[in-house]
Amino acid sequence: MRFASCLLALALSPAALAAENTPTESTPAPTTISDAAMQSAAQLRERALADNTGWDVVESLTTEVGPRLAGSEADARAVQWAEAKFKQLGYDKVWLEPVTFPKWERRSEHAEVLGASAQRLAITALGGSPGGTVEAEVVRFADLAALQAAPKNSLKGKIAFIDYTMARARDGSGYGPGGRVRAAGPSAAIRAGASGYLMRSAGTDSHRNPHTGITRYDDGLTPIPSAALAAPDADQLTRLLKRGPVRVRLALDCGWDGTATSHNVIGEITGSGAGGRGKPDEVVVIGGHLDSWDLGTGAIDDGAGVAIGMAAGHLIGKLPQRPARTIRVIAFANEEQGLHGGGAYAAKHVGDINKHQIAAESDFGAGRIYAFNTSAPDHAKAAAAQIATALAPLGIAYVTDKGGPGPDISPFAAQGMAWAWLAQDGSDYFDYHHTPDDTLDKIDPKALAQNVAAYAVFAYLAADAEGNFGSELKKVEPPKE
Amino acid sequence: MRFASCLLALALSPAALAAENTPTESTPAPTTISDAAMQSAAQLRERALADNTGWDVVESLTTEVGPRLAGSEADARAVQWAEAKFKQLGYDKVWLEPVTFPKWERRSEHAEVLGASAQRLAITALGGSPGGTVEAEVVRFADLAALQAAPKNSLKGKIAFIDYTMARARDGSGYGPGGRVRAAGPSAAIRAGASGYLMRSAGTDSHRNPHTGITRYDDGLTPIPSAALAAPDADQLTRLLKRGPVRVRLALDCGWDGTATSHNVIGEITGSGAGGRGKPDEVVVIGGHLDSWDLGTGAIDDGAGVAIGMAAGHLIGKLPQRPARTIRVIAFANEEQGLHGGGAYAAKHVGDINKHQIAAESDFGAGRIYAFNTSAPDHAKAAAAQIATALAPLGIAYVTDKGGPGPDISPFAAQGMAWAWLAQDGSDYFDYHHTPDDTLDKIDPKALAQNVAAYAVFAYLAADAEGNFGSELKKVEPPKE
Repeated sequence: MRFASCLLALALSPAALAAENTPTESTPAPTTISDAAMQSAAQLRERALADNTGWDVVESLTTEVGPRLAGSEADARAVQWAEAKFKQLGYDKVWLEPVTFPKWERRSEHAEVLGASAQRLAITALGGSPGGTVEAEVVRFADLAALQAAPKNSLKGKIAFIDYTMARARDGSGYGPGGRVRAAGPSAAIRAGASGYLMRSAGTDSHRNPHTGITRYDDGLTPIPSAALAAPDADQLTRLLKRGPVRVRLALDCGWDGTATSHNVIGEITGSGAGGRGKPDEVVVIGGHLDSWDLGTGAIDDGAGVAIGMAAGHLIGKLPQRPARTIRVIAFANEEQGLHGGGAYAAKHVGDINKHQIAAESDFGAGRIYAFNTSAPDHAKAAAAQIATALAPLGIAYVTDKGGPGPDISPFAAQGMAWAWLAQDGSDYFDYHHTPDDTLDKIDPKALAQNVAAYAVFAYLAADAEGNFGSELKKVEPPKE
Repeated sequence: MRFASCLLALALSPAALAAENTPTESTPAPTTISDAAMQSAAQLRERALADNTGWDVVESLTTEVGPRLAGSEADARAVQWAEAKFKQLGYDKVWLEPVTFPKWERRSEHAEVLGASAQRLAITALGGSPGGTVEAEVVRFADLAALQAAPKNSLKGKIAFIDYTMARARDGSGYGPGGRVRAAGPSAAIRAGASGYLMRSAGTDSHRNPHTGITRYDDGLTPIPSAALAAPDADQLTRLLKRGPVRVRLALDCGWDGTATSHNVIGEITGSGAGGRGKPDEVVVIGGHLDSWDLGTGAIDDGAGVAIGMAAGHLIGKLPQRPARTIRVIAFANEEQGLHGGGAYAAKHVGDINKHQIAAESDFGAGRIYAFNTSAPDHAKAAAAQIATALAPLGIAYVTDKGGPGPDISPFAAQGMAWAWLAQDGSDYFDYHHTPDDTLDKIDPKALAQNVAAYAVFAYLAADAEGNFGSELKKVEPPKE
């Protein structure tokens, strides 16, 4: 997961604007789910809880491919892996859709305190940072606002350091302000004249594993080397600064290098079209993103999401009675560096927005799902409540005033696609997120199976419903020139 | 802490043999502790619990000096730091005693899986390993015995990998077999013809922070590059090996490079000699070791031990009524690579063994002390029990059938110096031991203060006792030529 708050920042693509249509004025008939489907869903749920496909998939991806930075050789292997895995799991249709994006590489990174307390600091370059070596005095700021308030040129020849500690929360809400320190800190540092940028990792652990993640530099600014310190190293730097001036050497070898093409990998379990409740060319979309940062093996971010989607679709595919609509599982390309896969999918498929019944992405680890909600309009609220009833035995509450789409479906959701929210317990997600510690051992197989069960139940019932969940292209003003 | 079991492996030095004497045959008078001393100790205990000198000392060492590999520039800074800190804490006498040892350096280290599952592995060179690059197939062994049973030449051109998981235990007993994999594994690998050695870290965590520590190669064998994998990486390698052959590239730049001289740094709170109960040239020894591995900042191993000793002596020094004997606090040089400081101290001071009332070293982190014992012979057992009574309010049990001397005092204890054992709760010690994660945040200030209180009470009462705790040079056979 990159940003929780990226949704509103996304402008609509030209394709979306071209496909703009006019909503019908008549009130749609209520969306309904049959008793037979509810019974099938209950059986599916129990079967999923006892099934280990999800675990097997994430074990396979994280072991055989390992880290898979978007655009890297390993990312290409991950695409091959996903295509093969869909086929192996019995998906009816499997294909790739190309996604092209700027390519960023990390080659080496090093930081050390100079002088009388000379010692190495555990850091990692922020994604998007340029390379370069800076030796300079460090100036500490308690938070982003403090750095943003620094006068122009006040940090000339200095390294700016934001020592903000993000809060632990089940819903990951601490990542809002924590992630902004990463996204907006470097530009604020440049505006104040700094030649380097350091931040306390946006994380909740206290290990020597710094958290990477994408940053960006505002237009017109010359990027500076930017890195995150592990929490104990941020503590250390702060203690040293209390004693007097501290000079640090920050040496990064990384940066942008042309473009790369990866792929959204898509697998489908074809719907039955039975009973005329929906057509097989209508889809329920679930999935996660295939790329990961390069430090860990991308188990919780987002091997788990890919596995949950693949396993849920697989279990639906094995049902004696398929749902009416098709289950489309997407392993999105390059979420981490700017929702490239999600953006490409939306741009390509926006003309078919009405054929997207509803979508949900899992991209917040593998903790148990505790809440469910959807964007369903009034005519589909009763059906959403039926799905919630089927999810309740999994310990999942129906929460009607919270939630939103996962990152890769957010570009499409912004254009009007209906979304579902299956909220995972992320209490420890930011202990590992974007660090070397994002490895398979951090996933609890039972919690993962609960996720698969929830996604399977949701996707099955949404796909078999009579009626829709409100996907419809929004009327939007074209962006001002 | 290096090895728990090093005691028996140490041969006596020539100095020890020269100083050998004959124990007296008469029964010594019982050792006793006065009521006044017991009252003072109770006050000292409560004052120590509320005092933060221990925390301030370990904060200072780990922050201002940081990692301090024996023989490095930082080690020399640590010696200066210790000398200055003793003076600052009001010690009456402060001096250095030189310790010379072979110097080992770590420059860089890298390992990666080659081929279709290419990915980096988190490793660290074992201390004492030579540098070198090996690209070879990995052969896994479940434990040390399995590798030791491998036929000669059976691992020709291979990397041996021991995947043994050490057990978590309050008393650190899992480190016996865990440490042996590190100490004896490389030689077993060489005997079977291997060109490289990998082991699952001797640790109890599951983070991407591998555990270093000294290894050694048996005489007559040509050392091979030897490294420890972080636990998640050992898991990963094992999963890959289940799928088929795995080639790994192990590239270490490290090795021995001449000799270095560091120092035992010693501070004394001079005894009063009051009441003729003991003379100021008689000493109670407490302390820890000043060197650390280079990956972390040596907070639990063993900044805490140095801080506990320094703070306990400092608090005794501030008493209105000093104990009869002197408190000698030692910050030992180079424990990690072979008890060099402890060995040098024993060699230099063995002629004064009878003037060493009793000694205790703290080198097992900063967890709460839960048990106490001594080597006291019959005539001093009542006094030891009195000390235990004074420790009991700290939650410390008197356990008369367990324990032993800390590593740096073990060479001297092997020659007959009396020792005390203040057993720390080491349940999480091996989560951090010898890793980058051995940093200040892993110390609980309240637990550290409890340690200081216990050491202060013990040292004060032992120093003020009427009579001794049995230090006397042992009659030993000279080693066979």
